[in-house]
Amino acid sequence: MAANEIYQYSIVSALMDGIASTGLPVSELVKHGDQGLGTFRFMVGEMIILDGKLYQMKSDGTVREVDTSPSSDAVAPFAMVTNFRPTTTITAAFDDKKGLFEHLSKDFPDSKNYFLAIRIEGVFEGVTVRTAGGQKTHGEKLVDVGKNQASHTFDEPVRGTVVGFRSPEYTQGISVAGDHLHFITADRKQGGHVLAVGTHGDVAISAAQISQWRVELPTNDAEFKKASLEKDAEGIAKVEG
Amino acid sequence: MAANEIYQYSIVSALMDGIASTGLPVSELVKHGDQGLGTFRFMVGEMIILDGKLYQMKSDGTVREVDTSPSSDAVAPFAMVTNFRPTTTITAAFDDKKGLFEHLSKDFPDSKNYFLAIRIEGVFEGVTVRTAGGQKTHGEKLVDVGKNQASHTFDEPVRGTVVGFRSPEYTQGISVAGDHLHFITADRKQGGHVLAVGTHGDVAISAAQISQWRVELPTNDAEFKKASLEKDAEGIAKVEG
Repeated sequence: MAANEIYQYSIVSALMDGIASTGLPVSELVKHGDQGLGTFRFMVGEMIILDGKLYQMKSDGTVREVDTSPSSDAVAPFAMVTNFRPTTTITAAFDDKKGLFEHLSKDFPDSKNYFLAIRIEGVFEGVTVRTAGGQKTHGEKLVDVGKNQASHTFDEPVRGTVVGFRSPEYTQGISVAGDHLHFITADRKQGGHVLAVGTHGDVAISAAQISQWRVELPTNDAEFKKASLEKDAEGIAKVEG
Repeated sequence: MAANEIYQYSIVSALMDGIASTGLPVSELVKHGDQGLGTFRFMVGEMIILDGKLYQMKSDGTVREVDTSPSSDAVAPFAMVTNFRPTTTITAAFDDKKGLFEHLSKDFPDSKNYFLAIRIEGVFEGVTVRTAGGQKTHGEKLVDVGKNQASHTFDEPVRGTVVGFRSPEYTQGISVAGDHLHFITADRKQGGHVLAVGTHGDVAISAAQISQWRVELPTNDAEFKKASLEKDAEGIAKVEG
């Protein structure tokens, strides 16, 4: 893929419907981008892709780098990646996700109908992440998986990287409308899906506006074929917002 | 593009919002596929792409082949194309769009969450096409453009080709959910957006199920940037169904 194009595997409504027993081999996923996020088979943990390395952040608090060679058996039931080449980097502080949203909106004033790829480097505080514990039963829906998620709040400022995407409102149900962010610490030992984030002083906020979006639908998943895939905007906002 | 991938320029909600004063040069569009449909600047007429040739079917009843060389000034504010390589061809008759829908659903029983690319060759009857007359004022919305469309019913059986796509329900607003079909006669002298179609005996219905969908958003259009792009499923069904 060319730089700053989004490659997406499956649609978020499929996760909402509990479709997570198959997925794209991670060896294929990383061919499409060096940065992004997603989930794993049976929604076990959170996926973050950073500089071409892929990590699984689990609800027991562990993080492992996942083998992305062709012999890896890891798959992504849902993921979004890009070959990230930021067009803008600003140095700024923010108190919460709303503050970050406002920085990005100011920096990309005409971007609401496009995607943004986002990467933030620095020391953060007030960080709360969640990590999905995985489906307890086959086909358990994301909303129910979310009820059993682990969340962790960092008590101290922590150095790390936030990675994610802003997707336009009209993609809700296919992507996650709005800001969808994952976090990993600089030592790659902790992280998850960002529920809350602020900064400890200035951080570097890099972003690129994206107008090329490629979606690949699962063809090897009998459950995807039969799924209702109805948009549940409220449910998505609840578990992915 | 590889065979049986859909390339789509802009989103149908942008047409609903009246965003049609710019578009992708047709010389670029035909690089992405040899078959498909779309519209022209200011929604003047209907676009059909067949065997790599691109036609404009206008509300005055005329059809012209459009220059797709780099010197062409024609643009597509919205289009979907594919390099069509049918995976199934059946010989069958149908009385109306519902009958066609049922043939396709039977032939692709697990396809509701995927795209289908469709091409039908033969002699048709009961064909009614509409051709948009174009925006009367700058930014006129598609629903209003549709009020001034010309429709033409063929009194006699007519040989020709139907081309189009079936898009999954969850793409509504980005694509046109359901069957979206354009028609052109074998002599390339008449055609338009299909409102009604039946067959005169058996025709050849070819189709391919598609799981790769690439969307390019307009970056050169100030109006697209500001547009609300809210989904109007009822309006889309009315003007594009």
